[in-house]
Amino acid sequence: MSFKVGVIGATGAVGRTLLDILEKRRFPVSELRPFASSRSEGKEISLFGKLWRCQALKDDAFRGLDFVFVDVDDPIAKEWVPKAADAGAWVIDNSASFRLDPEVLLLVPEVNGDVLRRKLQKAGPLGIKDRILANPNCSTAQLVMALKPLQDRWGLKRVVASTYQSTSGAGAVGMSELKEQTQAYLQESPLKIETFSHQIAFNCIPHIGGFSEDGYTSEERKMMIESRKILGLSDLKMSVTAVRVPTFFCHAESVNIELEKNFEMDEVRKALSDFSGLTLMDDPDQKIYPMGFSVAHQDSVYVGRVRRDPSLESGLNLWVVSDNLRKGAALNAVQIGEEILANQKKN
Amino acid sequence: MSFKVGVIGATGAVGRTLLDILEKRRFPVSELRPFASSRSEGKEISLFGKLWRCQALKDDAFRGLDFVFVDVDDPIAKEWVPKAADAGAWVIDNSASFRLDPEVLLLVPEVNGDVLRRKLQKAGPLGIKDRILANPNCSTAQLVMALKPLQDRWGLKRVVASTYQSTSGAGAVGMSELKEQTQAYLQESPLKIETFSHQIAFNCIPHIGGFSEDGYTSEERKMMIESRKILGLSDLKMSVTAVRVPTFFCHAESVNIELEKNFEMDEVRKALSDFSGLTLMDDPDQKIYPMGFSVAHQDSVYVGRVRRDPSLESGLNLWVVSDNLRKGAALNAVQIGEEILANQKKN
Repeated sequence: MSFKVGVIGATGAVGRTLLDILEKRRFPVSELRPFASSRSEGKEISLFGKLWRCQALKDDAFRGLDFVFVDVDDPIAKEWVPKAADAGAWVIDNSASFRLDPEVLLLVPEVNGDVLRRKLQKAGPLGIKDRILANPNCSTAQLVMALKPLQDRWGLKRVVASTYQSTSGAGAVGMSELKEQTQAYLQESPLKIETFSHQIAFNCIPHIGGFSEDGYTSEERKMMIESRKILGLSDLKMSVTAVRVPTFFCHAESVNIELEKNFEMDEVRKALSDFSGLTLMDDPDQKIYPMGFSVAHQDSVYVGRVRRDPSLESGLNLWVVSDNLRKGAALNAVQIGEEILANQKKN
Repeated sequence: MSFKVGVIGATGAVGRTLLDILEKRRFPVSELRPFASSRSEGKEISLFGKLWRCQALKDDAFRGLDFVFVDVDDPIAKEWVPKAADAGAWVIDNSASFRLDPEVLLLVPEVNGDVLRRKLQKAGPLGIKDRILANPNCSTAQLVMALKPLQDRWGLKRVVASTYQSTSGAGAVGMSELKEQTQAYLQESPLKIETFSHQIAFNCIPHIGGFSEDGYTSEERKMMIESRKILGLSDLKMSVTAVRVPTFFCHAESVNIELEKNFEMDEVRKALSDFSGLTLMDDPDQKIYPMGFSVAHQDSVYVGRVRRDPSLESGLNLWVVSDNLRKGAALNAVQIGEEILANQKKN
């Protein structure tokens, strides 16, 4: 069996990574329909050795598609995602538009794939909202991957995280801005500031997204609210500070965790390394811990600097790094598609 | 009155900043005796319009000096600091060699200047250890500056901090390495790695100092242990993760604080902005918060992103940024010298 697949935002940073992952993981594609802005209309995209021409979005664009992957800004997603679902496709949406909708599943397959499996096994016709599957924020995905094995075994009491997020989180334009500003800075030329609020070259900006009245940014709120939904812990105590740093790839997170129950460090290490999709990279005496430049373009979520926090009864520190374009976006979306395929076959 | 001043490590990043600050703050210097490695011997240094020739350290080098500022690696400081104190000078040491010695004061004047004042007012002859005054680690200094006004009013229960530390923390060689690696990376040339454990260009390294058995680094332990000593809270619960980021100037810290008592946000803001040496820079809607590139070369410690952490009964988040060569090192050392002068005059 193979499937007709649409990709909205096919020429963006996440879209390009998604096409790469579909190919590498041999997602069964019989037809690719790439959608892009008018700027990229007519551009040809290669997948499985064939070329597919980018087209503009229009109302009947989704006819006959089995899957539509969506990687565009929230307002565009909000408009087109329901149309694609209404046309009968499974729509896997990387925007924030539907993540918190109680009727829409927000998924990280290794963490809460069971809720999707249960929905697929339920009898009865599927509505539009059932066909929309939301991909979490990139920083959320890697965080819940690291938290889930701890939650399962010891329970989560409170989580404090500070992030070190790369410019690729703002797409290809973000990476270009870092590169161009860096070159200009080293040549002592004036810097152009467009994508980020301030100079990002050789600077950290504690501001991603918009500010809420409570002083948290939208990025920070996403990490807190989406994590609660994915982990199924509506009251999880959590505080996040999200910071943009001058790197190209990967988001890193310094995570301080209070667990419900006492733990042995050996068992924590084992639980982390046994968890599918998570890699323990933790031998500090050998200078081994995850870093953006060493784990970029990898699928796994990497955890290092694992150590007890003696300031709590059951406290733990982790340093979590992952390629935000992969597990944080494109890879997770493809995995959701694979989960649907696996469960449809069984039925 | 004016004084004979020695500077050990006069040509390093902190040493040069120190000379600049002595001049700007008009520290009363009648003679400067700059000490440097044999590489810089004979080099001339300008202060108050005069040139002073760098000399090598030798046993009688400190004769007649009133103050000696020390900015060299721990083993060199360990050898020469007691000799300078024995020669009768006040020795203000930026190394870690004496910071935790119970007989040596560890000082941030705005925070615990009172312990120095009490020592100076006490009758009786001063021993060698009394004449040694330790300057804290750069990340510690800015952290305790932000914590002290909160401690005074509401009490500190627990502190969780993650740092974003610039390459200048590793001295001039650290900054050069970032610049050279960045240029090489952009030209796709091989990178030379010498000062830092890994590539620092476009990368974050969660490793500053050496690792202890408990998994914390020496930098992280310094921040925890020195903060407790300076704040006079030997049991303060604290956990730190220290990370080197690809910036040239300033250290930033994401700080999550549990206070003993409930607070009003207005009062927290007032307490922070009223505290001498601390500047509240916090208007996020106007994109105003402290960042390295905007507060570099400034004396103050800057605090922004001040917001309640609703995951605690009395929780608070702060984003603290300061020029690590100034309040974190040279400025604080000069302020200790000024504190001695002010109190000697009174006596």
